[in-house]
Amino acid sequence: MRQSTLFVKTSKNLPKDEISESARLLLRAGFADKLMAGVYTLLPLGFKVFKKIEQIIREEMESIGGQEIFMPALQPKENWEKTGRWQSLDILFRLSAGESREIALGPTHEEIVTPLAGRFIKSYRDLPFAVFHIQNKFRNEKRAKSGLLRGREFVMKDLYSFHADQADLDGYYEKAKLSYRRIFSRCGLGDCTYLTYASGGSFSKYSHEFQTVSPAGEDLIYLCPKCSVAVNKEIIADVKHSCPQCGQKDLIEEKAIEVGNIFQLGSKFSTAFGLKFSNEQGENRPVLMGCYGIGLQRLLATVIETHHDQKGMIWPAAIAPAAVHLLALNLENEDAKKSAEKLYRDLRTARIEVLFDDRIGLSAAKNSQKPICSACLAGSWPARALWPRASWRSRKDRTIKQTFWRRRI
Amino acid sequence: MRQSTLFVKTSKNLPKDEISESARLLLRAGFADKLMAGVYTLLPLGFKVFKKIEQIIREEMESIGGQEIFMPALQPKENWEKTGRWQSLDILFRLSAGESREIALGPTHEEIVTPLAGRFIKSYRDLPFAVFHIQNKFRNEKRAKSGLLRGREFVMKDLYSFHADQADLDGYYEKAKLSYRRIFSRCGLGDCTYLTYASGGSFSKYSHEFQTVSPAGEDLIYLCPKCSVAVNKEIIADVKHSCPQCGQKDLIEEKAIEVGNIFQLGSKFSTAFGLKFSNEQGENRPVLMGCYGIGLQRLLATVIETHHDQKGMIWPAAIAPAAVHLLALNLENEDAKKSAEKLYRDLRTARIEVLFDDRIGLSAAKNSQKPICSACLAGSWPARALWPRASWRSRKDRTIKQTFWRRRI
Repeated sequence: MRQSTLFVKTSKNLPKDEISESARLLLRAGFADKLMAGVYTLLPLGFKVFKKIEQIIREEMESIGGQEIFMPALQPKENWEKTGRWQSLDILFRLSAGESREIALGPTHEEIVTPLAGRFIKSYRDLPFAVFHIQNKFRNEKRAKSGLLRGREFVMKDLYSFHADQADLDGYYEKAKLSYRRIFSRCGLGDCTYLTYASGGSFSKYSHEFQTVSPAGEDLIYLCPKCSVAVNKEIIADVKHSCPQCGQKDLIEEKAIEVGNIFQLGSKFSTAFGLKFSNEQGENRPVLMGCYGIGLQRLLATVIETHHDQKGMIWPAAIAPAAVHLLALNLENEDAKKSAEKLYRDLRTARIEVLFDDRIGLSAAKNSQKPICSACLAGSWPARALWPRASWRSRKDRTIKQTFWRRRI
Repeated sequence: MRQSTLFVKTSKNLPKDEISESARLLLRAGFADKLMAGVYTLLPLGFKVFKKIEQIIREEMESIGGQEIFMPALQPKENWEKTGRWQSLDILFRLSAGESREIALGPTHEEIVTPLAGRFIKSYRDLPFAVFHIQNKFRNEKRAKSGLLRGREFVMKDLYSFHADQADLDGYYEKAKLSYRRIFSRCGLGDCTYLTYASGGSFSKYSHEFQTVSPAGEDLIYLCPKCSVAVNKEIIADVKHSCPQCGQKDLIEEKAIEVGNIFQLGSKFSTAFGLKFSNEQGENRPVLMGCYGIGLQRLLATVIETHHDQKGMIWPAAIAPAAVHLLALNLENEDAKKSAEKLYRDLRTARIEVLFDDRIGLSAAKNSQKPICSACLAGSWPARALWPRASWRSRKDRTIKQTFWRRRI
């Protein structure tokens, strides 16, 4: 992609009410635009990151057998009355669709997926299975001040699983846990994201959050350095301020962002919607369910909260908008232009995703050495690049590295 | 994909109020599920078709320089008041977000994209460009009786283009026309979809619809057999019942479904939002805009309206849920099972997308000849398949064809 054709520019003017650091960086870099509190547009480079995160999540959901569907945002009031949440859920957007019809704007999809599953589940032979969807959610947050970390509209991946018995649900729950670890690790959050014990509701002792340690976090967690797990604030008193795995008392308090959560719903929603199956003895039993969520914009913003410095964002390679940022300097010079264009063509031929800064006169002043052209790998600063070998300075630790495009990238 | 693992089953029970033929076929086959009037869930096989249509549209939008973004569904009332549509648009969902804040649920995105573009357009050097997004839209249709052809919630691709002068807008408009032809042609609607002259509003004589001839159509069009273009009902009197291209009077009346429309907005929205640029002489001029829409669920349903017979849906190969439907018969027989499993593996190794009906005892009764296994190409009936050569009967004209997997498919 040629940067000269991008309609977006970087900007120094930020909305005055934007206090979230990740949102400020994303807005400044032209990755996102703020429409109103808690509501953002993803611009071309931000949308590229978003699609890569979506694809990683999709692959990991498919790897544990998730079948992708697409459920609606408009949801009948009746379904929400069956679970009592039409009244009780304060963040629920309610809207009128004509004189006699009220509709919920989906903040989550248990009220839709449970009766849907009921159409296809008759006996134990129809179980287990898992469905997921990646869809806009709407939550009427009273104070939406955390940028993309807590939007009033955001895309969420929800996986729902359906089981005949507790052992089967437990087994799948563990699989989902591992797939969540892979997702956060592929998105560059593996080192700072902790499986966190949280309140389990009426059907299991614990649920689990995935918490990324960050000063921007709205949550407090208590880390066990030995087990690399944590406990959230709501249940720390219940576990007597000790690690639920090893019993250790010296837990470290950290601020953290909840980037995912997994939950055994048990028969809570099955009961509300009469979702039953007949077992091998022909007896009707409630289906057991699990749910597993990740907010995509929150994950994207969390990556920036944990991957930036005073110069700006540092994208992990797997979700960077491009693998290579090619900066063509001194483009007024005909030889320099030819050389940069050749490198751009060669990178594309090698199917390496490249963002080519081909804007004339813009970059030259930035670099007094004026090399012919520079390549900047995702998460790196530019250094001299000579096809087919290129060197660059790591964006994080500033060491100089070398590679051959075709071999390493 | 193994059919035995799909959580969805075909169904004979249809919602009583479902009168749309395409919706009935999609619901019966388990491609979609109805949540309420005008609101549907896409189930795994339907979602696969949907994603293929989305990808075709994305590729064609990128081929004419469209930059993909993702704009929100929640939209501030102020923006809709600027164009007067907060009051005038009867299908607009309006909702309350706290005491003093009203929000529109986006039925279209001119009110968002125009001020967004304004942040990045200063001079003629910033023009032209085009952005598109693929996002849920919401329209409070009073009578949503046409199944997926006219939903109250549906995904739409909108492309918006921005230009310095009329000649540039005209040129891009023609490019968009061609890309739309390619989209409908790739989705299997090329033969029955006509460029249709429609009312142009205040900024151009005509806008254009793409109308697919079908008895399910809600529109009436008048076809010129010579030029292969049409005129819609609203303007047929204005053009004196003659073809706008050749003047011919003998136009053929047909029912048709509007699968896309393209429109020169001129400066209508630029004026409302003060979207100007300074030209080479330093004078401020309004930016000219074009908009180009396609509803994805409507396109999907239109394909079924035009591609089915009394036995069910006939998917065009490019958007079929899988390239091959492998029907394993007589799976109780160990040799038959081995052979079917080998063909399934081989197809996957050759990266051919295959839906493998591996349900034991289910298919055998359907075929008295009991071949070892059958392969059914998209849009074809099964015939004997012997790896690496397979024959099949065309789903449409019933002729028998042969192919080598690796070479032809």
